[in-house]
Amino acid sequence: MRKAAIIGGTGYGAIELIRLLHNHPKLEVTKAISHSQSGEVLSSIYPHLEKLHEIKMVDLDIKSLEAEVDIVFIATPAGVAKTIVPDLQDLDLQIVDLSGDLRLSSRDVYKEWYGKEAAPQETINQAVYGLTEIYKEEVQSAKIISNPGCFPTSALLGTIPALEKELISPKGIVIDGKTGISGAGRTPTGTTHFPEANDNVLPYKIGRHQHIPEVEQYLSKTIDEQVTTILTTHLIPMTRGLICTIYAELNQDITTKEVIELYETYYKEDKFIRVLNEGEFPATKAVQGSNFCDIGIWVDKRSDQLIIAAAIDNLVKGAAGQAIQNTNLMNGWEEDLGLAAVPMYP
Amino acid sequence: MRKAAIIGGTGYGAIELIRLLHNHPKLEVTKAISHSQSGEVLSSIYPHLEKLHEIKMVDLDIKSLEAEVDIVFIATPAGVAKTIVPDLQDLDLQIVDLSGDLRLSSRDVYKEWYGKEAAPQETINQAVYGLTEIYKEEVQSAKIISNPGCFPTSALLGTIPALEKELISPKGIVIDGKTGISGAGRTPTGTTHFPEANDNVLPYKIGRHQHIPEVEQYLSKTIDEQVTTILTTHLIPMTRGLICTIYAELNQDITTKEVIELYETYYKEDKFIRVLNEGEFPATKAVQGSNFCDIGIWVDKRSDQLIIAAAIDNLVKGAAGQAIQNTNLMNGWEEDLGLAAVPMYP
Amino acid sequence: MRKAAIIGGTGYGAIELIRLLHNHPKLEVTKAISHSQSGEVLSSIYPHLEKLHEIKMVDLDIKSLEAEVDIVFIATPAGVAKTIVPDLQDLDLQIVDLSGDLRLSSRDVYKEWYGKEAAPQETINQAVYGLTEIYKEEVQSAKIISNPGCFPTSALLGTIPALEKELISPKGIVIDGKTGISGAGRTPTGTTHFPEANDNVLPYKIGRHQHIPEVEQYLSKTIDEQVTTILTTHLIPMTRGLICTIYAELNQDITTKEVIELYETYYKEDKFIRVLNEGEFPATKAVQGSNFCDIGIWVDKRSDQLIIAAAIDNLVKGAAGQAIQNTNLMNGWEEDLGLAAVPMYP
Amino acid sequence: MRKAAIIGGTGYGAIELIRLLHNHPKLEVTKAISHSQSGEVLSSIYPHLEKLHEIKMVDLDIKSLEAEVDIVFIATPAGVAKTIVPDLQDLDLQIVDLSGDLRLSSRDVYKEWYGKEAAPQETINQAVYGLTEIYKEEVQSAKIISNPGCFPTSALLGTIPALEKELISPKGIVIDGKTGISGAGRTPTGTTHFPEANDNVLPYKIGRHQHIPEVEQYLSKTIDEQVTTILTTHLIPMTRGLICTIYAELNQDITTKEVIELYETYYKEDKFIRVLNEGEFPATKAVQGSNFCDIGIWVDKRSDQLIIAAAIDNLVKGAAGQAIQNTNLMNGWEEDLGLAAVPMYP
Repeated sequence: MRKAAIIGGTGYGAIELIRLLHNHPKLEVTKAISHSQSGEVLSSIYPHLEKLHEIKMVDLDIKSLEAEVDIVFIATPAGVAKTIVPDLQDLDLQIVDLSGDLRLSSRDVYKEWYGKEAAPQETINQAVYGLTEIYKEEVQSAKIISNPGCFPTSALLGTIPALEKELISPKGIVIDGKTGISGAGRTPTGTTHFPEANDNVLPYKIGRHQHIPEVEQYLSKTIDEQVTTILTTHLIPMTRGLICTIYAELNQDITTKEVIELYETYYKEDKFIRVLNEGEFPATKAVQGSNFCDIGIWVDKRSDQLIIAAAIDNLVKGAAGQAIQNTNLMNGWEEDLGLAAVPMYP
Repeated sequence: MRKAAIIGGTGYGAIELIRLLHNHPKLEVTKAISHSQSGEVLSSIYPHLEKLHEIKMVDLDIKSLEAEVDIVFIATPAGVAKTIVPDLQDLDLQIVDLSGDLRLSSRDVYKEWYGKEAAPQETINQAVYGLTEIYKEEVQSAKIISNPGCFPTSALLGTIPALEKELISPKGIVIDGKTGISGAGRTPTGTTHFPEANDNVLPYKIGRHQHIPEVEQYLSKTIDEQVTTILTTHLIPMTRGLICTIYAELNQDITTKEVIELYETYYKEDKFIRVLNEGEFPATKAVQGSNFCDIGIWVDKRSDQLIIAAAIDNLVKGAAGQAIQNTNLMNGWEEDLGLAAVPMYP
Repeated sequence: MRKAAIIGGTGYGAIELIRLLHNHPKLEVTKAISHSQSGEVLSSIYPHLEKLHEIKMVDLDIKSLEAEVDIVFIATPAGVAKTIVPDLQDLDLQIVDLSGDLRLSSRDVYKEWYGKEAAPQETINQAVYGLTEIYKEEVQSAKIISNPGCFPTSALLGTIPALEKELISPKGIVIDGKTGISGAGRTPTGTTHFPEANDNVLPYKIGRHQHIPEVEQYLSKTIDEQVTTILTTHLIPMTRGLICTIYAELNQDITTKEVIELYETYYKEDKFIRVLNEGEFPATKAVQGSNFCDIGIWVDKRSDQLIIAAAIDNLVKGAAGQAIQNTNLMNGWEEDLGLAAVPMYP
Repeated sequence: MRKAAIIGGTGYGAIELIRLLHNHPKLEVTKAISHSQSGEVLSSIYPHLEKLHEIKMVDLDIKSLEAEVDIVFIATPAGVAKTIVPDLQDLDLQIVDLSGDLRLSSRDVYKEWYGKEAAPQETINQAVYGLTEIYKEEVQSAKIISNPGCFPTSALLGTIPALEKELISPKGIVIDGKTGISGAGRTPTGTTHFPEANDNVLPYKIGRHQHIPEVEQYLSKTIDEQVTTILTTHLIPMTRGLICTIYAELNQDITTKEVIELYETYYKEDKFIRVLNEGEFPATKAVQGSNFCDIGIWVDKRSDQLIIAAAIDNLVKGAAGQAIQNTNLMNGWEEDLGLAAVPMYP
């Protein structure tokens, strides 16, 4: 059994890692690190873990990490991993960062969108962007993974095949994202207060969501050309689930059936991508609790646009599940080891 | 007091008319017509009406209608009004049809999208499209109103000013719609069964929603030029509420602030349109139970696109509220008579 | 038009008063008092009020209140009214306190349950408990109303008739309460954070809810004998709505039908009480947004127990609606003036 | 690997069995039997199973069952198992019936509450009631399990210890049940139609729920004395989750702490029972997706009553999870084999 530590042990990303790793045959969580909750047993904060995880949280002690664990998951808010990873990167540890700190190659872009200083360039350069299906080889040989954001995971898995195969124009791509509210994190605010969030749809951070530069960077990388997109995000009154509806201008005459076949071929080795049949569209509930990404495709002949919908569970494929999927590959295991669960339905 | 009959007395549109008209100072519902529930008291089907409406439903009797009421609201599913209105249109009655039967000027287009024969051309020609803020003069002198659909109301109110004032290209307009599930009507289905609809977002009728030709017809009318758009619809786990996020290519250099001013000017006489300040976006809950349409605006400089979000209550401004608003104007009353309610928050 | 001030202008009770009073023919809100938000326009905190209420909030200035308004609603958290009312009670003002500060006749009991010093005894003695249907005469001649709590409103309206008519034993009454989360107020907490509250039922404050002594005091008053009850409360994943299911031991042989008739007779003058037919039970949605209290009754012959279910909207009949209902009576108006709305369904 | 068939392959109980058994190390589903959907692949009805279960459903063929599988789960509505089990009981098969057909020992009582003829007495007599923690020994040696109902599982696990240890009177026990709507099954109805079920609490089947005789039978069996209880059920706007709040008269002077210790001792060998600390109460979300039953306890000194709250996931410990737990014991495996999952939170 390889051992893992989780830094930032009390956020939703962390407890989702704990849930998913609970029955992993080769990896166990042996350390939960949280400065603010140091000394607390995790189940005292999260009663659902009673009898399952009596782990006591501890402070971060870099020196002991290398000796005690093999893998470090970082599940902290933005701005924290950038200070921790430099201290870990030369140690004999695999590092998986679930935050946005190492996703953007340009420090200036990070600063512009996150409003903070970025990680050192050298650290950023070492990190491999863990969009597993797209960068499988790089992930397999990586030591440091920068785990993608939730919206980018859905948007990129939905768009990259069509872009790479030159079906669509890189100009004017529109991505309309909808997310369950666990995506906002664990801190209560007026916006996420149940009476105000329930039965409500609210667009937020329009034009300024930190996932915009991330989506653009990896779309640009796909065709080696600067791509600018729109990504809007809407809070939806559900706990989990995320779906991006993507609109792009077709630059060839092609049928829905043909695009579906193209996507099926593109993803045929990928256990967690399900390309739906013609006329079917993905429901977020159909992937709930699992690492799947369901993709629905429609060629709108009337407007010559391609419409793609890509649904994930924002905490699983959008965070902890993809982190474990990457970790599996980094360790030479099957990508679905410990992750092969049936979605929770209903 | 003028008197109204409601045909199709047991759908959500009908009971919303009843709720909104309950305290209308000049209009009262005196007749509820439902063939399938004839003889039943409305409160036996809808216990929330106990003590409030002891109206007994009756069969449709065209001859007596003219003598007994002044206004007829038709709140039936598609395909019914088209057979009833021809029989009513020459009588001394005002007619407000909440269904889609008279919205499309072309009988062929209706047939293509609704899969049924359309109403007689002559009847369609007489009907005035009741998008109140846009067609106020025509509504005031109308005898027959074709009340707009819920998505078109939101999409058109959001898009028409920018299109009319030539801010945006008519090509490539994308409208991403999200609706609460009351929009699907009263009939239970697998999709709307609570365990399956709850905590779930599902795109539906992609590329084939009957509101597509309606939105296109009125956008085209605005600039006297054929406009083709995309309109997608997503079921959201909430009871009421509808928001369209609209994306269009700007064809001039303009700021968010300037577009907001243009919309404020455009709608300055309109009591039910609220144009939000820069940086603010509409929440569907903020208009819940009321006839307001809240509009948020963002110029995305990076992609030269205009993003508009328009939120309504699908049963009020998207149906019954707009029907009453139109009826008020048809009768020479203030447009907000009986409708000036504060949204129900939270 | 009589004028009203609301102290505590930013809580849910306050904005519900504003919503309900918006179309009141004889009463208007002219002053919104909030120390913490003084200087702010209410619609900047609550966008749903845009165009409807441009009231600017002000600090409390007792001297000017008497001159400027006729009625003062106090919608503050517990512990505030007790310091304000003594300063207002000798002025020419009607006072309606929505908090718990004046409901309990014993200062010691208040201190035990609320953990704070109580209001002066003299102030408490002047306040009339505003459970309208039960204490109608006292309310009509009152100057100061202590508006009941939400659970007590439902529990007392459901239980008092059976207790007063000696159908049930005063021993062992069990009241199982379920409430929508707006009942927890406006302050975000971990418990009311949407991802944690959604799809979750949670019993809270078991054995220590401040509504327990209130329910007991008024049940005891009904039969002039000390009554001890159980009242449990459960948070339900909905915005509004409250239902108490009440269990009491029958002390006579009686049928469901007979108990229903007894309740119908008891409440026959009361416009807002709806006693359901045999076999029907109240849904909280059927009273949503309205001042109704729906009561369902069942005699369980197998166990000789009476089961009553009483459903209200916690913000309306459980707070603001009942406050206005009481105000109407205090001013010699019909009890349903401005309140005669149809519930919002669905 | 032992093989299982599921009869009634398309209900929520069946697909929950499929989900939970997916990673069971010793048991796999090899046959899904559904008369109405015979010939269909399960994933065509339930897209969430795409890529996971390509099982084609077949008709029931009793002769082949014995040869092809070792265990038969029956997940049909009431009234079906009673006709199937007699044909299976003499075959070399283990049978687990998730319906109510074999739970009641008296055929007359079954007929009175279910409105149908009961199974043959001989079949009923052979079935062991699978309330695992209480009847562990009987389950281990059973060939036919009658899996308990959801409300009874929660109510009995919550009440039996106190009753058995004579802490409470068997008279006047009140059980107030609250359930998520998946408990109502898969068939859409007006009541479970999302717009009507959402944001709504509704008591249903008061006094006539089929789980009443079941709870009474097993409480009676515990103390070998006829126990009559009240069990009410309320539909709650959530997908999964069930909690019973139980009220019983104490017949001794005892503290909350002491009762908690008694329950902890009673259940100390039971992996799936979590007795909470004093002052803590179970949230249904804390057991979501898992086989746990969380129990909270409160001695109400003021009224001399014991209050117990017992929370489960109605589809897991209330149905499929308990069925697998029983199957594990029947086969000499650890009771948590394949079931040791962390609840899905949030």
